[in-house]
Amino acid sequence: MTTTEPTTRGRARIAGPGEGIGLDELALATRNHGLPLEALRYDVTPPGLHYVLTHYDIPAVDPDQWRLEVTGAVGRPLRLDLDDLRRRPAVTARVLLECAGNGRARLEPRPVSQPWLLEAVGNAEWTGTPLAPLLEEAGVSPGAVDVVFTGADHGVERGVEQDYARGLPVAEAMRPDVLLVWAVNGAPLPPQHGAPLRLLVPGWYGMAHVKWLTRVEVLEHPFEGFQNATAYRVKTEAHEAGAPVTRIAPRALLAPPGYPDFMTRERFVSPGTVTLTGRAWSGRAALTAVEVSTDGGDSWTPADLAPADPAHPWAWRAWTCPWDAVPGRYEVVVRAADAEGLQPVEQPWNRQGMANNLVQRVPVTVLER
Amino acid sequence: MTTTEPTTRGRARIAGPGEGIGLDELALATRNHGLPLEALRYDVTPPGLHYVLTHYDIPAVDPDQWRLEVTGAVGRPLRLDLDDLRRRPAVTARVLLECAGNGRARLEPRPVSQPWLLEAVGNAEWTGTPLAPLLEEAGVSPGAVDVVFTGADHGVERGVEQDYARGLPVAEAMRPDVLLVWAVNGAPLPPQHGAPLRLLVPGWYGMAHVKWLTRVEVLEHPFEGFQNATAYRVKTEAHEAGAPVTRIAPRALLAPPGYPDFMTRERFVSPGTVTLTGRAWSGRAALTAVEVSTDGGDSWTPADLAPADPAHPWAWRAWTCPWDAVPGRYEVVVRAADAEGLQPVEQPWNRQGMANNLVQRVPVTVLER
Repeated sequence: MTTTEPTTRGRARIAGPGEGIGLDELALATRNHGLPLEALRYDVTPPGLHYVLTHYDIPAVDPDQWRLEVTGAVGRPLRLDLDDLRRRPAVTARVLLECAGNGRARLEPRPVSQPWLLEAVGNAEWTGTPLAPLLEEAGVSPGAVDVVFTGADHGVERGVEQDYARGLPVAEAMRPDVLLVWAVNGAPLPPQHGAPLRLLVPGWYGMAHVKWLTRVEVLEHPFEGFQNATAYRVKTEAHEAGAPVTRIAPRALLAPPGYPDFMTRERFVSPGTVTLTGRAWSGRAALTAVEVSTDGGDSWTPADLAPADPAHPWAWRAWTCPWDAVPGRYEVVVRAADAEGLQPVEQPWNRQGMANNLVQRVPVTVLER
Repeated sequence: MTTTEPTTRGRARIAGPGEGIGLDELALATRNHGLPLEALRYDVTPPGLHYVLTHYDIPAVDPDQWRLEVTGAVGRPLRLDLDDLRRRPAVTARVLLECAGNGRARLEPRPVSQPWLLEAVGNAEWTGTPLAPLLEEAGVSPGAVDVVFTGADHGVERGVEQDYARGLPVAEAMRPDVLLVWAVNGAPLPPQHGAPLRLLVPGWYGMAHVKWLTRVEVLEHPFEGFQNATAYRVKTEAHEAGAPVTRIAPRALLAPPGYPDFMTRERFVSPGTVTLTGRAWSGRAALTAVEVSTDGGDSWTPADLAPADPAHPWAWRAWTCPWDAVPGRYEVVVRAADAEGLQPVEQPWNRQGMANNLVQRVPVTVLER
C-alpha cells in the first residue's frame, strides 16, 4: 500500500506497478454497491441489486421540506414541490445505467478511485416527468448553453468542497426522454438512488443522472464545475483538458455460467451444451452484434442478440450463445459492437479510468462430468 | 498483489506485510454490499442499504417449484410450499444482522476473504413464522443434537464443493424467536436476501441465517460440514479446531459526522456543539454502555444510550454524545460494553478474521468556521 505518486490537488493518483488496492479504494468498494453478475439474469434489476455510486454521503432529505428550483437564464424561475411534479404527466422508462468508472480496477496502471471491476451497471424502470416541458414553461434563454443539475450531496473532492453538480448541453437537457424521476420499479426512490428526485438522461453514463436533485440552472456559458471540467474527463496526461465523458460506449457482459469458487470466482460447468447468456448495450449508437470467444479472444462466434424492443430503446438487450463444452480450461470473452465500432480487446487506458469498455474475461473450467 | 503464502486446500490465506487488497478480495467487495455508514441514521435499514454477503451465486429459485423439506431424525418428515408456510402464524421482528467477518480488512496481518471494513450490518424488519412449532409437528428425536439448514446456493470453497449448509444446536433452533422468513420491511424477500425463504436466528452472526433455504435436517450427532467445522471458527493457528462462531459480540458504530472527502472518507465538521450519533448492539448479552473518545482512545465520555425497546429486543440501539468541537484534527473512537465485557481497543486477531469487534476509529477535522 505504498504511495508511488503523491496526491496533488485536483489530480487523480495512479497506482504503482503491482500495487494492491489500498484501504481508501476498499472503503469506496465496500460502501458503494455493484450488480452481482448473476443478476444479469433479470430483465429488470430488482431493488437492491442495481449499482450505486455515491460521491459523498447519501444525504438525509426531508421530502416535505424539499423543493426543486428551476433558475438561471430563464424568463420565469420556478420553485416546485414533489406534489407539483407528481401532478405532471408521468412516464416510465426501462433504462440501462452504467458508471463511467466501470472496469477501472482492471486497468494497468490503475487509476486510484472507486475500484469497479465490471459490476457498475443496472437496468431498472424509472418513473418521472419529462424535464423539457418544465424548462419550456420556465422559458429558457435563446442564448442557453448548458443546464446545471445540483444535488443535495456535499463533500470534498481533490481539495474542492462542493455540492455534486453536473452540466448538460442544453440540447441534451431538452431531449423528450430526459426525466425528473421519483420512483423506481414501481416504488418510491430509496435514499441511495436519489430520493426524493433524481435526473435520468438515457444513454449517458451515471454521472449525468444527478441524484437528490435540488436545483436546475440554465447557463449562457459552458459549466466549468469540478465534475465537468476535472473529474469526468478522458485524458492521458494530468495537464490535458481531455474530452468530456458523455454517452455509454458499447459493452457485453456474460452472466457467469455454472457455479463459482468463493474466493477466486472461477467458474465450473458440466460438459455438454452450455447456453452462454448475458446482456449488451450501447448509449451512443444502435447495437449491431455480440460475439463470444471461448479461447481467450483468438476466435469469435456471433451470439444471438435479442431484437431491440421499441418499448424500451434504452434498456439492455439479452444475448445467448450455445457452447459445446468439452472438459478443459477456457477463457470466455464477450464483446459488443454498435454502429460506431467494436468493444476493444486491448485496454483503452486513460488516467481517470473513465468510459473504459475493455472486454470481460471469465475463466471457466469444464469438468469431466 | 504478490502471494506470500500459498492457498492450501481447506486453509485460508493470510496477506503478507504491507500487501494491498488483491483482485480476488476486491471481486468479493464489489459484488457483496455494505451499509454506507451514514445509513446508521435510519431506525430500520431501507431496502438496498442492508449488508449482503453471498458465498457463491444468488441462486435463481422458482417460488412455485420451491419446497422446504423438514427431515432427518424426526418422526414425521414434512414437505411444505410457500403457501403452507404463509398460512401459519406470522411474526415480524426488527433484528440486527452482522457478518462474522465484519472488520476483517483492518486486521494486521489481514486474513484473505471478503474484506469488510465496518459496514457489514443492517437492522431490518423480517416477517415469517416460528420454526419451533414446525419442528414439534415433525417430532424431533429426543437424541437430536444439531439442526442443519441448507440453502440453494452452490459452489466451491477451499476445494470443497457444497450447497451452503450450517448446523445450529437444537436448543437454539427451538428458540421461539427463530423464524422462517419470507418478507423484509413489508415486501417479499428480494433475491439477494434469500427469496423465497430464509432463516433468522436473532443474536447470531449472519452465517447462521441461511438464505434460499430448502432443507431442515435434524441430526443426532454434531454437524461437521465445511461452514461449521472449517470456515466459521475462531482460531489463531491453521491446524487448530478453534471455537465456533456463534453470537454477535458488542459493537458501537458512529454515523460519520459532517461531510466527507470522496477518496479518503475523512470527515469535516464546523466548530461548535456537534451531536455525535450512532448505533450499538450485542447478540450475546444486554448492552450496558457506549463510550466515546475524541482523542484516539486516551479518554472516554459516556454516551446517552437509548433504552432497550421491549418490542425490539434484537434491534440495534441509538446513542448520542454531544461534543464541543474546537478547530483541529481528532480521532473519534466509540466502544460498546455488554454484561460480558467491553469492545477491545486493540485488535483481537484470529486467522480467519471472525467475530472481530475492534473499535471504529474516525478521523475528523474540525474547521475554523
